[in-house]
Formats: sequence, structure tokens, C-alpha cells
Amino acid sequence: MEIETIAAISTPIGEGAISIVRLSGPEAVEIANGLFGGKDLLQVDSHTIHYGKLIDPETKEIAEEVMISVMRAPKTFTREDIVEINTHGGIVAVNRVLEMVLESGARLAEPGEFTKRAFLNGRIDLSQAEAVMDLIRAKTDKAMGVALRQMDGRLSHLIKKYRQELLETIAHVEVNIDYPEYDDVEEMSHTLMREKTKKVANEIEQLLQVAKQGKILREGLSTAIIGRPNVGKSSLMNTLVQENKAIVTDVPGTTRDIIEEYVSVRGVPLRLVDTAGIRETEDIVEKIGVERSRKVLMESDLILFVLNNNEVLTEDDKNLFEAVKGLEYIVIINKTDLNQKLSLAEVKKLAENKPIITTSLIQEEGIEELEKAIADTFFAGDIDTGDMTYVSNARHIQLLKQAKQALLDASRSLELGMPLDIVQIDVTRTWELLGEIIGDTASDALIDQLFSQFCLGK
Amino acid sequence: MEIETIAAISTPIGEGAISIVRLSGPEAVEIANGLFGGKDLLQVDSHTIHYGKLIDPETKEIAEEVMISVMRAPKTFTREDIVEINTHGGIVAVNRVLEMVLESGARLAEPGEFTKRAFLNGRIDLSQAEAVMDLIRAKTDKAMGVALRQMDGRLSHLIKKYRQELLETIAHVEVNIDYPEYDDVEEMSHTLMREKTKKVANEIEQLLQVAKQGKILREGLSTAIIGRPNVGKSSLMNTLVQENKAIVTDVPGTTRDIIEEYVSVRGVPLRLVDTAGIRETEDIVEKIGVERSRKVLMESDLILFVLNNNEVLTEDDKNLFEAVKGLEYIVIINKTDLNQKLSLAEVKKLAENKPIITTSLIQEEGIEELEKAIADTFFAGDIDTGDMTYVSNARHIQLLKQAKQALLDASRSLELGMPLDIVQIDVTRTWELLGEIIGDTASDALIDQLFSQFCLGK
Repeated sequence: MEIETIAAISTPIGEGAISIVRLSGPEAVEIANGLFGGKDLLQVDSHTIHYGKLIDPETKEIAEEVMISVMRAPKTFTREDIVEINTHGGIVAVNRVLEMVLESGARLAEPGEFTKRAFLNGRIDLSQAEAVMDLIRAKTDKAMGVALRQMDGRLSHLIKKYRQELLETIAHVEVNIDYPEYDDVEEMSHTLMREKTKKVANEIEQLLQVAKQGKILREGLSTAIIGRPNVGKSSLMNTLVQENKAIVTDVPGTTRDIIEEYVSVRGVPLRLVDTAGIRETEDIVEKIGVERSRKVLMESDLILFVLNNNEVLTEDDKNLFEAVKGLEYIVIINKTDLNQKLSLAEVKKLAENKPIITTSLIQEEGIEELEKAIADTFFAGDIDTGDMTYVSNARHIQLLKQAKQALLDASRSLELGMPLDIVQIDVTRTWELLGEIIGDTASDALIDQLFSQFCLGK
Repeated sequence: MEIETIAAISTPIGEGAISIVRLSGPEAVEIANGLFGGKDLLQVDSHTIHYGKLIDPETKEIAEEVMISVMRAPKTFTREDIVEINTHGGIVAVNRVLEMVLESGARLAEPGEFTKRAFLNGRIDLSQAEAVMDLIRAKTDKAMGVALRQMDGRLSHLIKKYRQELLETIAHVEVNIDYPEYDDVEEMSHTLMREKTKKVANEIEQLLQVAKQGKILREGLSTAIIGRPNVGKSSLMNTLVQENKAIVTDVPGTTRDIIEEYVSVRGVPLRLVDTAGIRETEDIVEKIGVERSRKVLMESDLILFVLNNNEVLTEDDKNLFEAVKGLEYIVIINKTDLNQKLSLAEVKKLAENKPIITTSLIQEEGIEELEKAIADTFFAGDIDTGDMTYVSNARHIQLLKQAKQALLDASRSLELGMPLDIVQIDVTRTWELLGEIIGDTASDALIDQLFSQFCLGK
């Protein structure tokens, strides 16, 4: 199979100072060289940068002023020859360059095709490739940390270790069965198998235990603020945004739209969602009724339910309690600066065992307690992403759960005294399931599907 | 004055495969090296690329996987040391890198500050710097061509030539006056002065004559489609978009929003503006009255006024003729596939001498004639942007007009027999005005103001 040279715009589309057209494949350097009015790129050292002009082969006119980076295989992202053409930003300019490159023989890359080649050429495994995409989509520092460590191969390392242990066990047992030197070989093999499956199952369980946290770190806690009109929902929103490092806002010039939705509360990323306008509008229950509200609220990971200390509980408040029943929520009794008219006993009764925090947002009181309550809801103690390996990807979690189940099946079979070759089926299945995470045993269809979710140019 | 090292995100903000943080200044390499977990960047050759990881100096954790380009002064865009840190795309990732760079001693670059340094360090002149921005903002191929040639220094070259001629004339005349060797020196100087001012004024006039076209190429013809309901406005819109290369659409993956508004009709970029909803809504006159319609329409460069061949002229049609009086418009009598009920004579009378085109958009007839009419309205014959130097920037046009006026003043003074030192004031003023175009005589305030309009990271 001949390997095609692919090309795509690898920077976000928009007005910017620099845009990049990236090529990868055996013809990459030759194609770029054919358009380049500068020195002979075929002769330059790998990993060097060259200034010059692109010349339109048809009109012979200058098409762009560019910097061309030449990176020769195998020390590249795709392990193929890579050329990056840095153009002045601008949609037309970068499109023109891409057009010229495509007309010179490159094929437009499919979404994720660069990363796919990195995977197919063995530079990274599947979980690392997925981490690349997570990194791009990361909305918070913590999410980025999780992705970076995954990209760095921490998860892959663990998975490979488990697989190795399982494989060795299988091999060992098979050898024992085929060439029994001692009489108690059956007994020994059973013991070994039991030990190993238990050990790996335990380790997988540990990974799964923090997976929910990993998912939160990756995606942010989808958080809704609810309450009757004028209880202080907007104040709470503003307080959370102002008190906490609003993520990505530190740096001027970044798009505010994307940002305002995310705040980091003690390291827990909150995505303040505008679920059906909950955030901004008035009482959700009043608008769409208890049943429908409940459905909407079920999509939130966390609900901040604000009450007014200065009013007695109303029917609407009670309806809201009904709507959030069984969901993850924190009750915030606001306006403690005003006279208490709310019955705390009544609230406690309705609030099941959920945390109840009293605040005076206007006087900036109780905020620290609230933040602690938010963090404690999902993370016991501090969040230390540094040492943890968080599984955050739904696909990985699913596969780990299946792998654990297969190991439990194996254990049960062992306890029931089933023959080892039956047990081995489950263990082999575990080995395969784990292989899917890193792509060793993944089907072409799965791989195609995964990479198709990538953005263009990656 | 100590030169600070500046840094900014130089790629558009958004999810993409690659984002770049660019540094420029004396500390650029040192700052990057302090964060880099790879080889010693202080020792590497200029214009080389290095793979490695950025390490957060505080947490010692891996902060990003990056490619770092090191470009040493003076062969760089700013003529200072430049480092480009290519990160995996993504808003959080690139912001984190920028933060780290800023914490390590770089200052956030102001908008356009990289290009400003390129200007201040003499790499490009002011008109070239402005072309850089035009290039980024270019919405059409032609606009890009105009910007590219300006960036390449074509306009600068002309301006410098004029200034040189004027300067030589001034010097020559001054020498003649100060050291008169012959009796007729006064006469000779007058003649020389007259010839030179006339020559340069003519050349400037030629530039100005195509400036309107340059401005159109740069910004697109703001085009409104008007007419009563059901005359075929939407069909016309669709025809123009479908028949002509909708600009920037050729390449998959680009944002469609930006595109649909622009079509290129025989090289003339039309910006199909939705002036007060003219494009999409019904009869503008009906809605807001003749007077206000007229005001809105005056903002268009071109109006495509559609009539129905199958109906007699109505009061509304006549009101529309009133609204477009004296503006640039083309009358399109559509639906020639239906019986003619419209009086062509009547239309001709109302249409002053504007072009009248008959079409059956539904049968795809008359479209070529319409396109020719559109192109002919602003460009006699073909548009050949290849050889022309188009002045397209409002600031340049204004300065050229002033320069021409100053030369005309000088000519008149000469004709009136005024003393040469009076004439020289006008010629020197011309020299200064032209200097403002390329930035030689531009004030700091002007320069600051111009660059502040640039995007961040450029």
C-alpha cells in the first residue's frame, strides 16, 4: 500500500498572526519544495526552519510569505516526514496555501489523521492518542493535567503491566498443564491463577474508584444554580466567578464566551450550565413544573439550591426540594444578614442529609464553607492530580469495567473448581479488553471511528 | 532603554491541532530554555526545532509536550531573537504555556507589537506593516494579492522613488540658489521645479485613479439586493452564490458563516450585505419609507434592483427608483420566461442611464450579462491585479490626496512666479506626507495607533 502525503490546516480557523498548513508523508518535503521560492528544501537538515516565499505554480506570482519547517522521519509526530508551512494568519491566505499544496499532490487529511498515523506507526498507543484530543478540548488546568499524564503514557503503562501479568500467568499455566513435572501442578496453577486474577482485579478496581473524579476533572462538574426569584442566584454566580480563578481568564485577549462558564473551586472545575435557562431565569419549577424540572436537573452533576433566610419556605421552595430529591445538591441559605424567618428545622427535614450552608453573599460571608462543601461532595480531601492516574475517558471506563467483570467471572469459575482451560477464556478476554484501551486489540472500525472525532489538522 | 521580551499567543484562539506562543526579545531563548525539559536551547543553532516537554517551574510537573523553534536575530520577523513554542491546540493548554512564559519574565505583547518591532527595527516600513494586517483580514484572493504586493514593498518602492525625486529637486534647487554659477539659475530652477512637481503629481494621480478599485478589492463591494416581494431576490442571491466561486469554500473544514457573504463575480468581490435586512426581508421601502431606505442604501457600493417582467410597475417600484436615485445600481428585469407586462420604456426613463439587464433566473438566462454588468461598473475590462499597484488603504489614499494637493499648490505658486523658497515649503510638505505612508515621518502617536488595531500575537 502506497502511503499518501496528507495535508491540513492545523491551527484554529480565524484571524490570527500565524496559521499553519501541515503536511505528513513521503512526498511532504518534495511538495513544499516545489512551491517554495527559497532554498532547496530537499537538501536542508532535518528540524530546521526556512524563510521564503511560496510561488503559485500557475501564475508564477508570489502567493505568500512563509516560514517552512522541515522535519524528517522518524523523529516526528507521525514518524513520517513532516513539513509545516507557517503563513501569516488569515482565512484566505491559509486556504490558498492549502489549495496549492493539495494541487501539488497532497491529499486533504481526514480529521485526526496525523494522530492516527502516529498511532499506526507506533509512536503512541490508542489511549495516548485519545489524550491528545482531550488535551485540545481541556477546559481546565486539572483536565489538562489528566490528559497530559495520559498522553505521557501513565495509563498505558498500567494497562501494559496488567496485560503482561495476565499473559505470563496464562503462559505459565499452559506450560504447567502441557508439561506437568509435578503431581500438584493442577493445584499450583489454580493458586497462581486465583492470586493473579485477584491482584489485577483489585488494581483495576482502584482505577475505577477514581474514574468518576477523573471524568469530573476532564469535563467539569455540570452545575446548576436554582432557587426562587431574588434569593441570590445571580450573586452566587458572580461570587463563584469572582472569588475563584475563572479558568483561562488570566490571560488577556482570550475569548470570554468560552470562559465565563468555567470556574475552578478548590481545584474542582465547575461548568456553570445554563440548563434550559436555569442559571439566568427565574424559578425553573414555576416555569416548567416539577416533573420536567427534575428531568432537566438530572443532567447536572451538582445543584446549588439557594433559599432566602429572610422568608418562610414557600410552596415553590418545597417543589424545588421535590425536584432535586435524590440528586447531588447543596442547600444554600442566603441573606443571613437579614432577619431569620426561614425554619432551619424544616429545611433540614426536606434536605435529606445534604449539606446546608448559610451565607450572606452580599457581605461575603459563608463563601469559604460553601466552596469546601462543593469540593467535598466529590473529592475527599485535597485533589492531588499530580500523583493519581485518572481514567477519565468513558470508553476506557467501560472497558475497565468489563475487564474487571471478566476477572470476577474467572475467580468464580476457579472457586467452583472449573477446569483451567475454561478459566483461561475469561482471563484471555480480560487481556483483550485491556488491549482495546491501548489499541493493541482494537478493530479497524473502532480506530477509524475514534479518530474521526478528532479535529481537522490534528 | 532596555528592550523587553514580549510574548503572546500567535494562533487564533480555539480548538485546533497546533497553537503557538511566540516570544521576541533578548531574553526569548533564555526564558524558553528555563521551562524546557529538553536539550539546552542556548546552545542550539538558529532556525532549528526541538521536541521536548515544558516543565512547570513551581510544581516541577510536565506542563505540555511542545516543539520549540529557536530563531536568532537578526534573520527573524522582528529582527530580534524569536522563540515559537508549538503546543497541542486547545485554549487551556496554550494559555498555560503563555502564563508560564509571562511568569518567567516575558511581558504580554500589545496588539501588533511583533510587527511594530519589525517596523521599528527597520525590517519593514509602515505600509508593509499595514499590508500584514490587510493580509490577515483579507476576505478574497484579490484582496490578498493586493496586500501581498504591498507587503512585498511595491507601494513603498514607488513612494520612495517619488520622495527621492522631490528631495533631489529640493537639494538641486537649494544648491543652485546658494551657489549661483550662472545668471539664469533662477529660471532653470523654476523649470526644474515645475517639471518635477508635475511629473510626481501625475504619477500620484495615476495611483489614486485605481485606488477606488483597490479599496473594492480589499474590502469587497458592499452589495444590496432590493425589490418588491416575489420578484426573485432570493433566486438572484442563490444564483450569485452558486454560479460564482463562493470565496474560501473550496476547502472543506472552513467556517461557512464567514464565507457565504462573499462571492467573486469575475474577480470582483461582492459582499452581499444584509443592510437592515434588505437581503432577506421584503420590500425595504414598504418597511421604512423612501427617505430612510435611501440612507441605508447609500452605505452600499452597489445595488441590484430587481423588477418583475410579468407585472406592471407599481408605486412601490417607483419609490424604489426614488430611493436609489444617484446611487450605483443595476436594474434587473427578472422573469422573462413569463409574459412581459412591464414597460421597458418606463423603466428606461426611471433608470437614468444605469444598466438594465433582463434575466430569467429560473431558466438561468441573462446571468452572464448581469455578471458582466457588475464587473464593468467598477472595472473597465479585466481586472488584472498582477501588474497593478493598488493603493487600498484609506490612510494611504488620504495622504496621497494631500500630497497631490500640495504639489498642485506648488505648481500654482510657480505659475504665479512666487519665490522658490515659498514653493519649496509645499514640496517639502509633499515629501513629508509621502513619508508618513511608509512611516519615515510618522509620529509616535500615529504609529502606536496604527499598530493597536492589529490582532494580538502579530
